[in-house]
Amino acid sequence: MKEVKVALLGCGTVGTQVARLLGEQAEEFAARSGAKLSLVGIAVRDASAPRDPAIDTALLTEDAESLVDDADIVIELIGGIEPARAHILRAFAAGASVVTGNKALLAAHGPELYEAAAEADVDLYYEAAVAGAIPVVYGLRESLAGDRITQVLGIVNGTTNYILDEMTVAGLSFDEALAQAQELGYAEADPTADVDGLDAAAKCAILASLAFHTRVALDDVHVHGIREIAAEDIKAAAASGHVIKLLANARRREGGIELSVGPTLIPVDHPLATVHGSFNAVVIEAEAADRLMFYGRGAGGAPTASAVLSDVVAAAAHKVSGGHAPRELIYGALPILPPAETIARFQLELAVEDKIGVLTEVSGVFAKHGVSISAVAQNYVRSDKRGETCRLTVTTHEALRRDLEATLAELEASSFVAEVVHVIRVEEN
Amino acid sequence: MKEVKVALLGCGTVGTQVARLLGEQAEEFAARSGAKLSLVGIAVRDASAPRDPAIDTALLTEDAESLVDDADIVIELIGGIEPARAHILRAFAAGASVVTGNKALLAAHGPELYEAAAEADVDLYYEAAVAGAIPVVYGLRESLAGDRITQVLGIVNGTTNYILDEMTVAGLSFDEALAQAQELGYAEADPTADVDGLDAAAKCAILASLAFHTRVALDDVHVHGIREIAAEDIKAAAASGHVIKLLANARRREGGIELSVGPTLIPVDHPLATVHGSFNAVVIEAEAADRLMFYGRGAGGAPTASAVLSDVVAAAAHKVSGGHAPRELIYGALPILPPAETIARFQLELAVEDKIGVLTEVSGVFAKHGVSISAVAQNYVRSDKRGETCRLTVTTHEALRRDLEATLAELEASSFVAEVVHVIRVEEN
Repeated sequence: MKEVKVALLGCGTVGTQVARLLGEQAEEFAARSGAKLSLVGIAVRDASAPRDPAIDTALLTEDAESLVDDADIVIELIGGIEPARAHILRAFAAGASVVTGNKALLAAHGPELYEAAAEADVDLYYEAAVAGAIPVVYGLRESLAGDRITQVLGIVNGTTNYILDEMTVAGLSFDEALAQAQELGYAEADPTADVDGLDAAAKCAILASLAFHTRVALDDVHVHGIREIAAEDIKAAAASGHVIKLLANARRREGGIELSVGPTLIPVDHPLATVHGSFNAVVIEAEAADRLMFYGRGAGGAPTASAVLSDVVAAAAHKVSGGHAPRELIYGALPILPPAETIARFQLELAVEDKIGVLTEVSGVFAKHGVSISAVAQNYVRSDKRGETCRLTVTTHEALRRDLEATLAELEASSFVAEVVHVIRVEEN
Repeated sequence: MKEVKVALLGCGTVGTQVARLLGEQAEEFAARSGAKLSLVGIAVRDASAPRDPAIDTALLTEDAESLVDDADIVIELIGGIEPARAHILRAFAAGASVVTGNKALLAAHGPELYEAAAEADVDLYYEAAVAGAIPVVYGLRESLAGDRITQVLGIVNGTTNYILDEMTVAGLSFDEALAQAQELGYAEADPTADVDGLDAAAKCAILASLAFHTRVALDDVHVHGIREIAAEDIKAAAASGHVIKLLANARRREGGIELSVGPTLIPVDHPLATVHGSFNAVVIEAEAADRLMFYGRGAGGAPTASAVLSDVVAAAAHKVSGGHAPRELIYGALPILPPAETIARFQLELAVEDKIGVLTEVSGVFAKHGVSISAVAQNYVRSDKRGETCRLTVTTHEALRRDLEATLAELEASSFVAEVVHVIRVEEN
């Protein structure tokens, strides 16, 4: 049986699980890939640092370059841009295939890496970079290769889903839910990348590139985080049969692709509504397949290691029997729509004067800007900094964001609207 | 660009969609597979029968053998055992890869076909055979190649899910829901294969073979259909926070694999509980990945065609660049547990005498046979053929089915139990 030399770069939570499983299930990997997978070294910054007992310390090295040069498959779990990028390009140049879980690197330098892999005729696999154990990269790049994808809509950040779920289920405030997530290790001390939607945006860019065969950069994604979501927004959503989720949305429309990450209202019987805790899920809409959903653990050492190892088995099988992973063909090259040109349904909560005729005035502003209203509810009157006001919840039909912004500007400047309390995108079932 | 000759056997609902999409999306298929996919013929029983306008009648032939001999990839959508099996073996012998959606054939002759494909060094793909557009075959055979699967639990029959869902949501009786499913074309005039669980059992056998690398035959699956489910069972389930679904269950236990298809109680917040209408979904539990779920259309012309075409693209890519689909390695060969040796939680509804001490007597019978009770509820008293009886709902901890059967036999023979109204398996969250 052919031996395939595997080099592991990085030995954190995921790397430790990868090394453990490679040892424990060696026979199964051999049967599945047709090759004996030999872990030949683990590159770390400090080889003398304490390690999990699952790690054979004799494999540790601080010389990543030499390790890469000697490998058939390189598993990159360092994260960040450099030196991860340099190591991957070095691996390709030496004829090695690469398995990575590095979403930041792919979102920033994906096309360069895809091309380098194709040129060297080796594999680049990255299932672990998006939604952990969930095989959504496969779903987009292989399973739906016989179809045309129209939308990818997903919960791709477990931290924010945990926070919103705790706000919904346990009635916590954002700050309380965040503190709890930090205590449990679901959120980092600096939660910016998660709660401001940046982590989800990187994954959105990778998913959109795959779904639409188009180069998408992180900056192309219109991002909005969840810091402004209040407990009362969650309650109001529940009252209308909705939940609020932070969704990554990539949709093909006439004229191009729209890309956004932001809090979104979805009906309680939407398949994404029952995704609780730190689980992730991605809905894919395709012309022939209709709706598919993939659900599972979006993070964690063992689940992410499972995704890494399935990629390693596929790459090893190619080393034995030929063939290669599907190439990232950028043949679609669809234009990316600026946020103002995107279309969505919105729900607005307006604090208005409690007087006869205000509804006519409000609806007149929407009509003037071509934004069609699907429903209006007068929620409650309450006292706040603006005195007694009445709350109007206005839900629109699909509207251009540009028209919505113009509507909002005029409402905010008007005498009869005290405040636009919030605006949130609405996704239908 | 290399040309890959594609032969289509069968031109029903799915075949028509496959032919249409191969024509409409020819450029995309070429970009994705690296080959020009040419549909060289469509074998049908009667070439003069009327066809969908999407079908180029010049491609129709009644000579399937000659068509197979001339193809690089054969798409088998005839169904049934023969002549489908003979055509597939002929294709392999001629060096062609095969894509099939034929679950009956795979459940009956899977191992023979896997071996023939491996021997001829060609591909056998069959994503469409289980759960339509849902890439669960991929999930088991490739995505989780780096993991160890412990359970596959799924809604794999859309007809029965539609019927149970209508009974749950609209309060219909089984007969009403079945009639409605037949009217809408979700159920056939003879619904036996669906409502008696046979279709789900064939899929269960295929899924279990893949998950546990073990030969599983249709007869190995313990099957129970949904004919006996009454509207009041559904109501009782709802009252205790559960829904009833027809689940295919394949689980690895100490000592072997248990396989069953049957109505199952699941909690309302279980991810399978929100699978409505004719949708399918499969939950996979794996040691490292934890819980994954795949959800989507389990049937229908276009969704099934999408699965067929993704397999065609993969097979075509191998024709161009080498490599092959993962082989079905039967290296695990785990024993299959007889039903009596399987373990599950159960819920029993007993009609008992309404007198003091009956609970002690009932629980004594469970204890005698080593079946541990987790909960008892006294539901209601009502009048039926046995007069006024009290209903006890008993939920057990995990128990050997053999012990449960012994308990049931003694309860049925006892003077204090008027009737065992129903017994249903319970799946935890």
